[in-house]
Amino acid sequence: MNKVSSLSTAIQSWMADAGQQARAAAKAIARASTGEKNDALWAMAKRIDACSKDILEANGQDLKAARTANLSGALLDRLELTEARVSAMAEGLRQIAALPDPVGEISGMTARPSGITVGRMRVPLGVIGIIYESRPNVTADAAGLCLKSGNAAILRGGSEALHSNRLIGECLTQGLLDVGLPGGIVQVLQTTDREAVSAMLDSPQYIDVIVPRGGKGLIEKVSAESKVPVIKHLDGNCHVFIDRDADMDKAVEVAFNAKCRRYGVCGAMETLLLDEAVAPSVLERLAPRYREAGVELRGCDRTLQWLKDGIPATEEDWSTEYLGPILAIRTVDNLEDAMAHIARYGSGHTDAIVTNNLQKSQRFVREVDSSSVMVNASTQFADGFEYGLGAEIGISTDRLHVRGPVGLEGLTIQKFVVYGDGTTRA
Amino acid sequence: MNKVSSLSTAIQSWMADAGQQARAAAKAIARASTGEKNDALWAMAKRIDACSKDILEANGQDLKAARTANLSGALLDRLELTEARVSAMAEGLRQIAALPDPVGEISGMTARPSGITVGRMRVPLGVIGIIYESRPNVTADAAGLCLKSGNAAILRGGSEALHSNRLIGECLTQGLLDVGLPGGIVQVLQTTDREAVSAMLDSPQYIDVIVPRGGKGLIEKVSAESKVPVIKHLDGNCHVFIDRDADMDKAVEVAFNAKCRRYGVCGAMETLLLDEAVAPSVLERLAPRYREAGVELRGCDRTLQWLKDGIPATEEDWSTEYLGPILAIRTVDNLEDAMAHIARYGSGHTDAIVTNNLQKSQRFVREVDSSSVMVNASTQFADGFEYGLGAEIGISTDRLHVRGPVGLEGLTIQKFVVYGDGTTRA
Repeated sequence: MNKVSSLSTAIQSWMADAGQQARAAAKAIARASTGEKNDALWAMAKRIDACSKDILEANGQDLKAARTANLSGALLDRLELTEARVSAMAEGLRQIAALPDPVGEISGMTARPSGITVGRMRVPLGVIGIIYESRPNVTADAAGLCLKSGNAAILRGGSEALHSNRLIGECLTQGLLDVGLPGGIVQVLQTTDREAVSAMLDSPQYIDVIVPRGGKGLIEKVSAESKVPVIKHLDGNCHVFIDRDADMDKAVEVAFNAKCRRYGVCGAMETLLLDEAVAPSVLERLAPRYREAGVELRGCDRTLQWLKDGIPATEEDWSTEYLGPILAIRTVDNLEDAMAHIARYGSGHTDAIVTNNLQKSQRFVREVDSSSVMVNASTQFADGFEYGLGAEIGISTDRLHVRGPVGLEGLTIQKFVVYGDGTTRA
Repeated sequence: MNKVSSLSTAIQSWMADAGQQARAAAKAIARASTGEKNDALWAMAKRIDACSKDILEANGQDLKAARTANLSGALLDRLELTEARVSAMAEGLRQIAALPDPVGEISGMTARPSGITVGRMRVPLGVIGIIYESRPNVTADAAGLCLKSGNAAILRGGSEALHSNRLIGECLTQGLLDVGLPGGIVQVLQTTDREAVSAMLDSPQYIDVIVPRGGKGLIEKVSAESKVPVIKHLDGNCHVFIDRDADMDKAVEVAFNAKCRRYGVCGAMETLLLDEAVAPSVLERLAPRYREAGVELRGCDRTLQWLKDGIPATEEDWSTEYLGPILAIRTVDNLEDAMAHIARYGSGHTDAIVTNNLQKSQRFVREVDSSSVMVNASTQFADGFEYGLGAEIGISTDRLHVRGPVGLEGLTIQKFVVYGDGTTRA
C-alpha cells in the first residue's frame, strides 16, 4: 500500500527537501502583494528574453537527443523552441501579470441577524504539482499561473525536455530572486528519474493538488496512483447535435468549424449527431465540405443511406477521440436520442446543440452533463482564453472543485471571513 | 493495491447494484424541478411524522443494544431519539425545502469579442456517499441536503443505529415514491457489514464524493482508504488571540463565549493566545469566570506568572482539541508570534483575533490559513446556519472544492454554458 516505502532513500530525501522548500515558499507567495507578484512575472520574462540564446541551445540538445531516439514528428514539434516561441513564453508571463489578481478578493459580505458579518475571501491552494510532457513552454506558463494565484509550484516536465526546462527553470528562479522573493516558489525538477513523479503523487503533506498536462495515458496513470487530489483533464469526445429546428446555414458552419478548425485540440468535434428530419439535407451540404477538407466520414446505417460512399461506423467509433481528420456521424430520432447518445458515449468535455428552439436549447443546456455545453456555437471555443479567463492551466473534466477550463480562480479556494464587534453566540 | 479484489463477491455485487441504482437515480434528481424536489422533501417529512412511533420503537431497540454493549453516555445521547427529535427531523426537511435551489443558477454571463456569450451554470455533483456515526437524525438531514442539491445519496450510518436508520430510510424512500420520484435517490444501507464502507470508498465509478461525518478516527480512516474524493472535516483546534489593541470588555466576552458556550463543538476555542502587554489584566478578569464555569486552565510559563494556580501546559496541549472544559493559554510577544503559533499548532478550522487595530485585523484575516478567520467574534459562530447557508452537511478543512461550512452550494459544481448564433472560432 504505502508507496513511499518502495521509493529509494535518495528520492525520499529529495522529495522531503523540495516539499519543505515549497511549503515555506508557499507562505511567502500567499502573502505577496499583487505588485510583488507582477514584478516577479516581469523579472522572469526579462530573464527569459535575456537567455533566449542559451534556452535555444539547450533546446537544441534536447532535439538532438530526441531525433537520435527516433521520437515522432509531432513530439519533435511540441519539443522544439524557436526564437519566436521563447519570446512568446516571456510575453505569456507579462500577460499573466496583466490579469486581475484573484487572491484576497472578498465577496458576499452579508450581515447576519446574530450581529456578525460573513463573507468569503479567495486564497491560494498552497503547493501545486505540475506533471507534464514535452512542451517546454508549459514550464513558464504553468509557473506563471501558479505564482499569480499565490501558489508555490513544483514542476516535473518530460525527460525529453530536460535541458530546455532546466534553463527555463533557472530564468524563473532568477526572476524571483531579482525581486527578492524566495526562489523556492517555482521548483523545476532537474531529474528524469521516474521515481520523482511517484514521490510527488505520494506526498499530500507537501503538495495540495496535482495538475497533469499531457496525453490520456499520463493523466490516467497520475489519477490512479495519486494520493494528492488531481485536477484531471481526460479526453474530449465532443459532439454537435443538429436539431430539426436548426438554422441550416448556421448548423453547417458550426459543424464544419467544430471539426475542421483544428483537428488535434480537445474541443474538436468527434461525432456529429443529426436529427433524422434534417439528416439528408445537412449531409448533402456538409459531406462535400468535409471531403474537400480531407475528413474521412464514418456513418451509422441510417446515415449511410444518404452518405453512399461513407464508411460504416463501428461501436468503437462512438467512443473514439480521433484528434484527426475522421468524423463519426450518427442519425438520431430526436433531441432525447441525441442526449442519450452523448450520455452514453461522451466524455463530459464539450457538447453543442444547433437549434432555434428555445425549449430544446434549455433542455440540452440543463441535461447534458459536460464541462461545457454550447448552443449554436462551435465546440472549438472550449478554451480558457475564449471564455475570458485570461489564461488556462488545463480543462477539467472533473466534478469537484473546478469543471471546464481552469484559470487563475481555479487555483484558489474561498475561506470564510467573519467580522463582529465583540459578538458572542447565544 | 486493488482493494476491490479483497472484497467478498456478495459485497461487490451489492455495491454494483446500489451504485447502478444511484447513478440512474442521480440523473432523475438532477433534472427534477425545484417544485418536485420540495414536494419530495415535504412528503418525506410527512412520512417521518406519521411513523414517529415506529421510529421511536426502532430507536428503542438500538438503545437497548447499545446499553447492553455498554456504550458511553455521550454516545447513547447522540443515538437517542425522542418525539421532539423525530419531529425536528421532519421540520429540518421542510426547512431544506424552503431554501433556494442552487441547481440551474446561471451566473457571470458575459459577451466575448468572438461573438459567444459565456457563463456558468450550477449543477449537482452526482452521487454522494455519506458515512456517519451514531446520530440517526443525520440520515434525514444529509439525505435532504443531497436531494435538494440535485444529488443521489448512499448513506451508511453506524451499526449502533441500524434499526433507527432503517425506519427513517423507509420513510425517505416512501416520500420519494409518494411524489413519483425514484426511491433510489436516497439509499440507506441495511447492512452493518464493515466491508460495505470499504466498497463505497473503492467505487469512484458509482460515487462522486464521500462526506464522512463523525470523529477524527472515522474521517482519517475514510480519507486514507478512499479512492473517491472526500470532503474532510478534521479537528477544530481553534484559537482566539487577544491583541494589545483589543477592547478589553469585548475580548473577555468573546474569549468566554468561544470556550464556554458549548464545549463539544468543533468551533470551540481550545487555546487562548494573549498579547503579553495585556495578558495580566485579561487573566485577572477571565480566569475567575472560567473557573466559575469549571474550566481547567493550563498555561505556558509566562502565563503562569499571573495565573498562580494554573496547571503547566505541555507541548501536547497546544495540539489538543479538548472538546471539554479545559483551556490552554499561551502568552505571546505580539501578533506575529500569535500567527506563528496558529500556523504551527492550529488545524485550519476557525481562528479569531480580538483587536481594534485595522492593520492587524487585516493581516490576521489574510495570513491565517484557516477555513474561517474571525475578527472580534466568537469562534463558536463557525456554522453553516450562522453563516446564512441555511443548512450544513459538515465543515470542510480541505483546500479543494469547498472550505469551511458546507451548505447546498458545496454539493454542486459550476459547468460552462456557451451561447452563439452559429458562431465559429477563427
